[in-house]
Order: sequence, then structure tokens, then C-alpha cells
Amino acid sequence: MTIGKLVEYEDAPAEVKAVYDDIMATRKVDWINNFWKALANDPVTLRRVWEGIKTVMAPGALDPLTKEMLYVAVSVTNNCEYCINSHIAGARKAGMSDAMLHELLAVVGMANQTNALVNGYQVELDERIRKAAQGG
Amino acid sequence: MTIGKLVEYEDAPAEVKAVYDDIMATRKVDWINNFWKALANDPVTLRRVWEGIKTVMAPGALDPLTKEMLYVAVSVTNNCEYCINSHIAGARKAGMSDAMLHELLAVVGMANQTNALVNGYQVELDERIRKAAQGG
Amino acid sequence: MTIGKLVEYEDAPAEVKAVYDDIMATRKVDWINNFWKALANDPVTLRRVWEGIKTVMAPGALDPLTKEMLYVAVSVTNNCEYCINSHIAGARKAGMSDAMLHELLAVVGMANQTNALVNGYQVELDERIRKAAQGG
Amino acid sequence: MTIGKLVEYEDAPAEVKAVYDDIMATRKVDWINNFWKALANDPVTLRRVWEGIKTVMAPGALDPLTKEMLYVAVSVTNNCEYCINSHIAGARKAGMSDAMLHELLAVVGMANQTNALVNGYQVELDERIRKAAQGG
Amino acid sequence: MTIGKLVEYEDAPAEVKAVYDDIMATRKVDWINNFWKALANDPVTLRRVWEGIKTVMAPGALDPLTKEMLYVAVSVTNNCEYCINSHIAGARKAGMSDAMLHELLAVVGMANQTNALVNGYQVELDERIRKAAQGG
Amino acid sequence: MTIGKLVEYEDAPAEVKAVYDDIMATRKVDWINNFWKALANDPVTLRRVWEGIKTVMAPGALDPLTKEMLYVAVSVTNNCEYCINSHIAGARKAGMSDAMLHELLAVVGMANQTNALVNGYQVELDERIRKAAQGG
Repeated sequence: MTIGKLVEYEDAPAEVKAVYDDIMATRKVDWINNFWKALANDPVTLRRVWEGIKTVMAPGALDPLTKEMLYVAVSVTNNCEYCINSHIAGARKAGMSDAMLHELLAVVGMANQTNALVNGYQVELDERIRKAAQGG
Repeated sequence: MTIGKLVEYEDAPAEVKAVYDDIMATRKVDWINNFWKALANDPVTLRRVWEGIKTVMAPGALDPLTKEMLYVAVSVTNNCEYCINSHIAGARKAGMSDAMLHELLAVVGMANQTNALVNGYQVELDERIRKAAQGG
Repeated sequence: MTIGKLVEYEDAPAEVKAVYDDIMATRKVDWINNFWKALANDPVTLRRVWEGIKTVMAPGALDPLTKEMLYVAVSVTNNCEYCINSHIAGARKAGMSDAMLHELLAVVGMANQTNALVNGYQVELDERIRKAAQGG
Repeated sequence: MTIGKLVEYEDAPAEVKAVYDDIMATRKVDWINNFWKALANDPVTLRRVWEGIKTVMAPGALDPLTKEMLYVAVSVTNNCEYCINSHIAGARKAGMSDAMLHELLAVVGMANQTNALVNGYQVELDERIRKAAQGG
Repeated sequence: MTIGKLVEYEDAPAEVKAVYDDIMATRKVDWINNFWKALANDPVTLRRVWEGIKTVMAPGALDPLTKEMLYVAVSVTNNCEYCINSHIAGARKAGMSDAMLHELLAVVGMANQTNALVNGYQVELDERIRKAAQGG
Repeated sequence: MTIGKLVEYEDAPAEVKAVYDDIMATRKVDWINNFWKALANDPVTLRRVWEGIKTVMAPGALDPLTKEMLYVAVSVTNNCEYCINSHIAGARKAGMSDAMLHELLAVVGMANQTNALVNGYQVELDERIRKAAQGG
């Protein structure tokens, strides 16, 4: 059960309503999901996180679909059920097919496996991989 | 320091050489990085993991660049230095620009932040997000 | 569902009853929460963990409220629902207001974000930060 | 090695210099640590993260020392070496003694232990703990 | 709720049925658990993961009971409820007693505690431990 | 660099020396590794953690080799380099062969992979697995 109340639009103070309005306008939806209603217990954080999400998830060098899938990858690794669902939903809305979801999850599973193998064997970084990661 | 020796091509048994050859042919490179040289201490795992990576990272519904970036997202979340470097290198090779890397890392940072906020507030999943995640 | 039974006071062997009595006396409560009832399946661990908690959470250089909030920070990061709830409850009992909880969660969210950014950019530690951390 | 260059003040574009100036003024220091120099490869993220940190870490319902210690607790749990050092340094500057640091780390260790025990035994949340966490 | 449908035997395509048959034959059971029914939404991953599990969990230098307990240790650390339950079940089937489970969980709790303490104190690795880990 | 000094035997106060003596006697070694020297900055925690480790790692329903391998599994999952090395060293001393280490790491890698797949697909727990985990 959410800590604090879920702040509904009609009960929200003006500063929260303003954020809710911006969320709905930006996302072209007519409802607010529970994440924002929970954050609204702390209007300063609500605004800060929303402004951050709006900036970070906007189309840029990466398209929104890629960003949503990256969000799913992190959320699966952290086992955040709410986040997995909301960003799978977001990715689907941005065009992710079932086949893409399956491949996404296969990559995430494999990455978690090889991360553990690297940790276990304590593999030393190859100098030329380090340079290539630097863009050199 | 890597647990076990780093198995060099010239010292490798035939079953390991066969995997190394396939890695180099598939990736069109002429060298083997330390991850595989470490796994080669256990030839069965070397083959299994390589076959898995080859399948999972092949172009399909998702392109190789997207897959490499997903791999980076997981590896950053798990803080696996080797994996972060090797998959940033892989993503660059597949076309990731600096601007794309910056946006990727911004998404990963934001996702780790909101995952924690969801956990802390224990936000309940909206029924309609659950349905949308199901593709409904 | 808890692995093993929840060991109720009236069904508990003497060694478990003794720990339960000490928990209730130390915390000035008249009931035992499920964590201890679950650990009581293993009386040696029950006693060891209780003695540890009693020592670690006692007022010392840090006051109990700060300790409960630190416990919440770890539990949110690990996404342990039971622990988040029980230590938010403990922190409230020790005086945490809603405003303090909101700031606590904001810090935890931010820390998870910047931890990921540091990992992603692989930022090298400044020599003078290292010294300052040492108390130098 | 940091991905990207460490952007020094004298080489920084105006938008980055403005953030650096604000960091130094806010913190009353005359140098910039590597975290910001690394983020400066992406000026938009630099500004967003700095504004966020400035808000979140400012004195409010919680004092700066408590906030720094919470940051340490998260960073230890995530094993982020840079973050552990920089926030231990920050906490010391805000007044943390060695004795406080030892108790902080003891709590973090204990919390990680009991989080795992709760996960392993899959302890069900007590209804009255849930209510107490809600502030009820 | 599982993403995708749970693919039942009677509705499964031939390639999935073949894997299901092999799972049941290998494990000497007459039913398929939900993990495989969920993976069956992606038959390529189903086969790859099943073949991997079959290889990795087969008796070898380590017996199946030890392997199941190692699986539990990882799953508890990652807080994967499904995995904790399915591998505790697997370990019990392979002979794990309640006493063994209690000791297993005690070790996992302790390891999570000392991992955090090592991170917090940033303990440097002893040269002779490094050598001993190498088998030297 | 370790936070605090590494407390050497000859500089240690009596309460620390007593723990060091017990560590060396229990483990039949003539030196103290850095983990304990770091914890000795906080003698209360040193004693508590040592007493805990001594109890938890003693032979019981599980033998010391199995316990060391479980410790490695957790430490790899948490990516604690010190802990991975010290418990691989401990496991080798207790009889772990290279072949056993390879299988251990293969299981840990696989478990991290399937944990992520379960999280991603959000697989619902089978009622009969839950019962089997309960020992029913």
C-alpha cells in the first residue's frame, strides 16, 4: 500500500495540479498514474522528478522507444515491478512489438549472467577495450 | 587479477580454439578479449555462453546497436566495469555517438532514481498500466 | 508465505521465549512481529540476529531516529518491502515526520541516480576526496 | 578511466562554467570534483543533476549531516566507491565523527543482513506494521 | 501477472512441446512450471535457457543439492521470490533438510552483511588472499 | 584505501588482540587479514561480526566447503571483490577444486540470468512450488 495518500487531481493543491496538467499535456493522456499521485505527497520532489523525466525521456539523440526499453532494462535488473510494467507499457505505446520485448528480455537476462561471470572470474579489462570505450 | 589463467589462442585446446575462431569470424576481429580467455578455463561454459551471446546479440527484431545499449544499461546498474567498457565499445562500433551515450546514461540514472522512489513510496500498480503492459 | 511456520509465543521453546521476552522488554511493546517469528524456526540465528540488532540500533554516537532512517535507506535500495515498512514504522515511532520521510526518500532516489551516473561515466576518485574521506 | 574528458573550468563552455560557479558558491569551495567534470560532457545533465542535488541536499526537515549519511548508506549498499568516498567526506565536513561513521556502517551492514533474511524466509508483513508505516 | 500468456502444453507449437517433453523427462515430473510456460512466448529463448539450465544443473564436480542451494543464495540476494521458492523446492527434493535451509539462509544473511562492511570500509585485498584465491 | 587505519596486532588494544587471538586459533593461521584489521577501528563491531562469522561458518548441517561456496555466490552477485577473493580462498582451503569453482560460477551466472528473466516476465509462482518450498 502506498506510503501516504494517492493525491487525486480534485484534491490537489495548485502546484500539484500544475504538474498534473503538464504531465497530461506532454503525454497526451487524460489521467494521472499512481507514481505521480504518490510523489504528490511531496510537491517539490514531484516537480523535480517530473521535469527530469520530461527532459530525459524527450526525443533527442535517442528516440522515445529506445529510451523506454532502456528504462525496462534497468527496472528488470532492479526488480521494480511497477517500473517494469509502466515502462513496458510505455515502450509498447512507442511501438515495441512482442518480438522486440522478447529480445529485450533475452539481452537483459544474458547481461545479468555475464556481469556475474565477469565478477566471478574477475576479468581484467583489455587495454584496447578501454580505449575503444573512450572512443579512441 | 583474473581467477585462473587467461587462455591464449596458441595454448588453447582444440575445443577452445574452435570457439575462438567462431568469435573472431562472427565479429570480424582478429583478437580475443579477456572475457573469453577467462571463460576458457571452463570450455563447456565458454561454448555455452558464446553460443548464447551469438544468438541473443544477433540482429533480429532489435538491431545490434539497441542491444549493445541495453547491455550497457544493465551493466551500469550492476556496476560491472568490464561489461560497461566492453559494451560501450560495442555500441560505439555499432554507431553510438557521444550524444547517444550521454542520453543513455541519463536514462539509466533517472531509472535508478525512480525505481528507488517507487520502492520507497511502495506505489501500487495502476490496473490500466498492468493491462497496457500486457498489450491489452 | 513465510518459509517455515510463524512461531507464536505460546508454542515457542524456552530459548525462543527468552528472546521474545527480551525483544518486548527492550522495545517496550507487548507483541512480536513476524520477522522474529520466522527467524524462530532457527533459534540460534534468532538470538544472534536479535543481539546484533539490539547492539547496533541502541543509541550511541547516532540517535535511534537516524539509525532507523539509515535502515530505511538501505531497505529501499534493496527493495525489501517488509524492511521498508518496519523501519519506516520504527522511524516514525522515533519521531520522523512526513516531511522528514519525504526528504529521506528524495535523498535515496538521488543517491541511486548519481551512483549509476558515476558507474556509467566511471569517474575517477579525486585524490583530495580520498584524503577527506580518510579524515585527513 | 572516466568516459569522456574531465572538463576543466578554463576549457568549459559558458553554460558549464555557470554551473561550476554555482557549485563552488553553494559549497563554499574553490575547486570542482571529478563527478561534475565528467557530467560536464553533457551540459544538460550536468545542470539538471546539480540543481537536483542542490535542492535535495539543502537543509530542510533533515539536516545536511543526516542527508550525507543517508547518501553513504545507499552508496555502500550499491558499492559505488566514488560515492562512498565523496559522501563520507561530505559527512565528515558536516560533523560526522569516527564513532558516528562506525555506527553508520554497522547499521548498513546489519540492514543488508536482515534484508536478505527477510527475503530468504519471505516474511509476510504484519498488518500493524503496515499501518504504523502509513502513520496510522 | 505474467507478461504474455502462460503457454499450456496442449496449445504449444511443436518446438515448445519438444522442450516441455525434455524438461519433464529430465526432471522425471509430469507437469511444467510457470517459468517455462512464460518463456515459451519466446521459443528460441525457452530452448536456449532450458539447454543451459540442463547443462549447468546436471551433477558434475558439484552435486545437484549444492547447485540448488547456490541458486537459492543468489536468488535471495537478488530478492527474486519465484526463484527463491522454486530453488528451495528443488533443494528440498535433492535432500535439503530444514536445518540445512536455516544454515544456508544464515550464511546468505552474513555474507550480505560483510559484503556491505567491506564496501563501507573499502578494505584492500591482502596480497596473500589474492594468491590463495588464484590457487597459488 | 581502507577507511581508517589497518589495526596491526602489536598496536591493538587488549579487546582487539583477544579477538585476533581467537581468529587465529579458530582458523589455525598465524596472521590476520585486512577485513578484521579494518573492522578493528570499531572493536564492538569487530567482536560482534567475528562471533557471528564463527557461529555461522562452523560445520553444522552444512559443511564448511558448502558454506564457503555459498558465500562466494552471494559475493559474486554483489560484486564484492575482497569477499569473492577471500571466500574463493576459503573454499579452496576447504577442498574446492578448479572444476568445482567453474561449476559454482556457472550456476551463479545462470541464476542471475533466470532471476532477471523471471523479473522481466513477472512469472507468477505456481501453487505447488510454493507448497514444495514450504516442505509440504
